[in-house]
Amino acid sequence: MLGRLNHVGVAVPSVDAALGRYRALFGTDAVGAPFDLEPQGVRVCFVSAGNTEIELIAPLGADSPLRGFLERNPAGGQHHVAYEVPDVEAARDAFAGLGVRALGEPRPGAHGSLVLFLHPKDMGGVLVELMEPPAAGH
Amino acid sequence: MLGRLNHVGVAVPSVDAALGRYRALFGTDAVGAPFDLEPQGVRVCFVSAGNTEIELIAPLGADSPLRGFLERNPAGGQHHVAYEVPDVEAARDAFAGLGVRALGEPRPGAHGSLVLFLHPKDMGGVLVELMEPPAAGH
Repeated sequence: MLGRLNHVGVAVPSVDAALGRYRALFGTDAVGAPFDLEPQGVRVCFVSAGNTEIELIAPLGADSPLRGFLERNPAGGQHHVAYEVPDVEAARDAFAGLGVRALGEPRPGAHGSLVLFLHPKDMGGVLVELMEPPAAGH
Repeated sequence: MLGRLNHVGVAVPSVDAALGRYRALFGTDAVGAPFDLEPQGVRVCFVSAGNTEIELIAPLGADSPLRGFLERNPAGGQHHVAYEVPDVEAARDAFAGLGVRALGEPRPGAHGSLVLFLHPKDMGGVLVELMEPPAAGH
């Protein structure tokens, strides 16, 4: 049901403040340009680890869904794992058949392709994002 | 400093109880055989996601370092991310130069190669494992 690990989502208090560390860890060329993803209330930056990516995310706006996570984890931490699926809506139906609930409806994600989050209570405490593969070069 | 993402470590209350879910998620062939890693106090099973692996870990023995995590997260959850480095001791020294502390000393990990964990307080709340690449077929 799940394909390759597209990225690991890591929450940080500030994406821009974290870039120096991630450039030191993965190299300057591995770190993309940060951008705001307003519909999801996050500021985002992708970092390449070669075989997959790290998605740095920080709260954007007062209603960001990340604010609760950062209240519990003020320094940041691992937030979600995103797997590629060919069709998010078909995957949602297949997970529903396993008793796994979706959080909301499919919507465009940071790569522009459709994404959907699954309820961590139904996934062993792991927040799983399903995403359709982005177009080349995301 | 960091190479490819070798695996995402996911804590579960019981590796064996989690295998059914992971076979459904990734396919029967993707799920390896569980085994005990007594020096680290964990029972382990690797699951292939194609481009990287999920390492399921559950407590083994009364002194397992995972017991505290599962007390805080009874259903389990994302525990660590493991990156490959060519030389763990050289990486430890490089991280020390950035002010990042190691947790303990390098020791053989689940793949048999040397591993070392870094202090999450120095890594934005993320528990990072450094590991030398395993021999083919780990």
